Amino acid sequence: MAYFLYLGFISLGFIIFLSFRILEYSSGNEKTTQLSSIIQKGAKSFLLQEYKVFFPVIFALSILFLFLMGYKASISLLVGALFSVAAGYFGMSIATRANARTAWAATEGLGKALKISFSGGAVMGLTVSTLGILGLAITYYVTRDIELISYYSLGASFVALFARVGGGIYTKAADVGADIVGKTEANLPEDDPRNPAVIADNVGDNVGDVAGMGADLYESYVGSIFSAIVLGNIFFKEKGFLSVVFVVIFGLISSIIGIIYTLLKAEKSDNPAKTLRVGTIFSGILTLSMTFVYSVYIEWLKLFFVVFFGVIVGLLIGIITEWYTSGKKVQKLAKTGMMGPANVIISGTALGMESTFIITLLIAVAVILAYKILGLFGVALAGVGMLSTLGISLSVDAYGPIADNAGGIAQMAGLDPSVREITDSLDAVGNTTAAMGKGFAIGSAALTALALFANFSELSEISSVNLSNTYLFLGALIGGMLPFFFSALTMHAVGDAADDMVKEIRRQIKEIPGILTGTQDPDYQRCIQIATKGALKRMVLPAVLAVLSPVLIYISFGAIGVGGLLIGATVSGVMLAIFMANSGGAWDNAKKFVEEGNFGGKGSFAHKATVVGDTVGDPYKDTSGPSINILIKLMAITSIVLMTIVRGL
Amino acid sequence: MAYFLYLGFISLGFIIFLSFRILEYSSGNEKTTQLSSIIQKGAKSFLLQEYKVFFPVIFALSILFLFLMGYKASISLLVGALFSVAAGYFGMSIATRANARTAWAATEGLGKALKISFSGGAVMGLTVSTLGILGLAITYYVTRDIELISYYSLGASFVALFARVGGGIYTKAADVGADIVGKTEANLPEDDPRNPAVIADNVGDNVGDVAGMGADLYESYVGSIFSAIVLGNIFFKEKGFLSVVFVVIFGLISSIIGIIYTLLKAEKSDNPAKTLRVGTIFSGILTLSMTFVYSVYIEWLKLFFVVFFGVIVGLLIGIITEWYTSGKKVQKLAKTGMMGPANVIISGTALGMESTFIITLLIAVAVILAYKILGLFGVALAGVGMLSTLGISLSVDAYGPIADNAGGIAQMAGLDPSVREITDSLDAVGNTTAAMGKGFAIGSAALTALALFANFSELSEISSVNLSNTYLFLGALIGGMLPFFFSALTMHAVGDAADDMVKEIRRQIKEIPGILTGTQDPDYQRCIQIATKGALKRMVLPAVLAVLSPVLIYISFGAIGVGGLLIGATVSGVMLAIFMANSGGAWDNAKKFVEEGNFGGKGSFAHKATVVGDTVGDPYKDTSGPSINILIKLMAITSIVLMTIVRGL
Repeated sequence: MAYFLYLGFISLGFIIFLSFRILEYSSGNEKTTQLSSIIQKGAKSFLLQEYKVFFPVIFALSILFLFLMGYKASISLLVGALFSVAAGYFGMSIATRANARTAWAATEGLGKALKISFSGGAVMGLTVSTLGILGLAITYYVTRDIELISYYSLGASFVALFARVGGGIYTKAADVGADIVGKTEANLPEDDPRNPAVIADNVGDNVGDVAGMGADLYESYVGSIFSAIVLGNIFFKEKGFLSVVFVVIFGLISSIIGIIYTLLKAEKSDNPAKTLRVGTIFSGILTLSMTFVYSVYIEWLKLFFVVFFGVIVGLLIGIITEWYTSGKKVQKLAKTGMMGPANVIISGTALGMESTFIITLLIAVAVILAYKILGLFGVALAGVGMLSTLGISLSVDAYGPIADNAGGIAQMAGLDPSVREITDSLDAVGNTTAAMGKGFAIGSAALTALALFANFSELSEISSVNLSNTYLFLGALIGGMLPFFFSALTMHAVGDAADDMVKEIRRQIKEIPGILTGTQDPDYQRCIQIATKGALKRMVLPAVLAVLSPVLIYISFGAIGVGGLLIGATVSGVMLAIFMANSGGAWDNAKKFVEEGNFGGKGSFAHKATVVGDTVGDPYKDTSGPSINILIKLMAITSIVLMTIVRGL
Repeated sequence: MAYFLYLGFISLGFIIFLSFRILEYSSGNEKTTQLSSIIQKGAKSFLLQEYKVFFPVIFALSILFLFLMGYKASISLLVGALFSVAAGYFGMSIATRANARTAWAATEGLGKALKISFSGGAVMGLTVSTLGILGLAITYYVTRDIELISYYSLGASFVALFARVGGGIYTKAADVGADIVGKTEANLPEDDPRNPAVIADNVGDNVGDVAGMGADLYESYVGSIFSAIVLGNIFFKEKGFLSVVFVVIFGLISSIIGIIYTLLKAEKSDNPAKTLRVGTIFSGILTLSMTFVYSVYIEWLKLFFVVFFGVIVGLLIGIITEWYTSGKKVQKLAKTGMMGPANVIISGTALGMESTFIITLLIAVAVILAYKILGLFGVALAGVGMLSTLGISLSVDAYGPIADNAGGIAQMAGLDPSVREITDSLDAVGNTTAAMGKGFAIGSAALTALALFANFSELSEISSVNLSNTYLFLGALIGGMLPFFFSALTMHAVGDAADDMVKEIRRQIKEIPGILTGTQDPDYQRCIQIATKGALKRMVLPAVLAVLSPVLIYISFGAIGVGGLLIGATVSGVMLAIFMANSGGAWDNAKKFVEEGNFGGKGSFAHKATVVGDTVGDPYKDTSGPSINILIKLMAITSIVLMTIVRGL
């Protein structure tokens, strides 16, 4: 664990260096600087208000744990929550500063814009992994008890829940609200500064796709490491424990090297997609090489193979996701637009559901191989392997919203159209990386949930269930229902919060006559506030559901029921998340494909039909789908913590 | 079992009496008689071609079982298949004769039309339950081995697979094809005889909603009885075994009495919905009363309570389904139509997903109470209780398509508009009963799958699984994926088969110039053939998937993996089926609500938006959703048979 501290501090130094480098660039003229500053403030204000809901809950929990389990558990929880919050807050602060700088750099060319936007993403990616392991090490040194790291993981899960669900509702409520009134009713183009919700929309990209995604992966990262450390320690003592630490370290070092490599290449790049892909693959190969050398050194080649499967499956899931959300599949989907919106919805739904097949088999193959080689520890270690290069994967992922924001700022500030062209090309790449990032987030959530489940079943000491034990099946039935119900709640939340937005936008356009003529600024702040309040208010019920269900099932059906609950929730949750993410991604790109001039292009019948698909896909892929990742992980970690409490009592 | 034979023959007598009564009525004028005859031939030709695919498979399997397990297993399989086929064929023959007679009777008034259409439904309902128990008894007397009844159940499952999946694809391909060209391109009204696919559409109602639904519930009925008999025999010897037989008998007697009561009331009825509901509830109360007296007599009150929970949950699921697919929920959904099709899709999706919550809890409560009272046997018995009044539930269900067909015939034959008004009012009731029937089919499939799972776990003799056994989780993961993949396949199948139809309809309209002017008849037969071929061809892959997956998982992961597979498939399958059925039902009725003149009525923006919802809902509720019922039951029964083979080897 001491290695975590050393490397963590070195990495922190690199992050600070990178941040200063970004801030050195010019944020542009008065207009771009001002826009960026409004987005910053909006994003910050959302986070601060989120904390107002969040911290009382965490403090109450920490006091509860203080009495139940002692100060160590309580501190672990707080460290998990605070570090994840810090990672999200810091990463987002830089991201919201990199946006205007990217837009401004785009006036000088593609390479420089790519460099800055990727730097911004890299700060997020590295901060998450660095604070992840630093927090873990601190928790370990404070508690000296591996099992209490579950409280650290629980803290991170809570942050993820609030950030992902709240952020997901926010971003889509603002997006849908802005589209309905702005595009449809007032006939304003995308990112038009006269639209009162335009800034809220840009804020949404940051709180949803940067802070939300970051917290989601922070949780997966620490959850999988925690599981692997515990299981490694149980089955292989110090050797198992240490191997996990080393794999994580190799991954972080490789990520840093990969990021530096990408940054060096970026300036001269004329193909951003390729540059980013090469960097990511390079980091993966580097991690595997280091792990291989280490495995040979400690004469434990099995270690290498398991990590290898994890890394490969992570890459393959990304490739399959890309296959389903771009290219021929999407062109075929776009073509159904010529038959009308219903055909687009049916085909897109079938496409998303179909995609569960290969992805599930991939996960199954990785798990089965890992299990054959190293047992339960292998399963958890494969998850660690998959997430080991999180530093660079998340960087590529967080780069997307920065490029998207930069495009918005360029448009709103009225920069030269050539600038918008550059940011658009960066944004297009960002869309693909975002889709892959979602696939990666789901895959890692599945492996993490599986690893946590393995942990839970060790803890629950249920070594002989009768398969016909009805509690197992009942727990699974209820667990399987929860992702569906959870999705319904988050979809309703988006709809209701978007309604609030629509009313506010209409009110402003009606009461401030100068908005549409461009002579008066709209009240951006009020839209931001309304989206914030709307999201936070509607986040409570899903959150309560996720946390209370394992407790209620434990009381009703005992530990076996909880085991069933986790199986059911993971199984149906993973499928629903894959389906929603890929349907949503495919609809988005089908619309873009038509907009490029195919099947009649913009304004055609096919375009209108694919716009329907895109609108349906928005809450699928950005709210409900990603929120399910949190649901299944949070339920698993809650169950583990519950077991430690039950055993402690 | 001898009771099954006695009652079965009495019931058969009643069915024959009822059939002759129906045939005594006039099938109307030359036009209605001719139309009815074309529908009959089309439906028959579909079934015959389905048998050509189906029987070779069944004979191959029976020969395989002959070598593996002896002649008794082989005969059981054949009896199950043949009896289910006979029930479907006979029931559908009468249903396709009752349609024109209902239309003609509607010229004399509502009561008579209701009486004939319900008689037609009753023939189907009673034939399924009567042949179900007769086949069971015959199998038992031939084999004298309760466990070999699983082969009987497997035979029935195969029929259900072909009938439900093939019929589901057929009915929607014809429906969508007819709508796309007929309504949208050629501007023909619904059920216009100039539309070449109009007869295929009417045939579809029969093969999908009559024969398909019948085979589905035949499978549930025999599956749940089989499970309960086996488990009753294991845990309570003859007492358990006999109780099941008596509950089934009480249910069938009550159904017959309820049907007679309904028929007597029908002629003077001015509220068909109420008449049907009263009859159904009356049968339920009668069954419970008889079971209560029996329980007191044999001094085993627990029996009564378990059956009571099964019956009540069956009714409650129907009520919840109605709540989600009519009234306020649907009005709210229809209102979102004013915001556009995307909002209709999102709200309807959320509605369907939300409905999983209460239904799952209802099932869970019934199962847990039944389990607490009588253990695993209780779970299976609750399923038998729920299905005990299948005779009348299925009658009410099968009445819907007959009324629907009658409306089509009235329209095509150009009968007086007042006739169409009467058939429309019958059809509207039929839509509600169909939605409730789907809820009932899913609920019973869930309970049957659970009972079969209990059976499987007894057979597999896995009494001590370690919860952390990765094969369990992996099996569940793959099982959970299958309903999604299966739905994708069936949705694609509908789309592709509908494309074939569209091409054929366009060809006819183009090449036969007299069609649109009404001077030349279209080639209905060719459309029927194309829908038939299209459905049967595209049924193969889903069918193979359902049957082979337990075998492949057994080879890869052993019996524990198969256990996981069944848990995963049931859990995610039940949720997906509930979601799809209720979203589909709600969209259908939302469109109808708008068509009644709300939110702008026919042709308005809201109407177009809700039509999109309805079109998306069609394959959801009539193809993919119902097919999942079969998938989960067939996988369960295949696993049981697999275990008997493995143990026998």
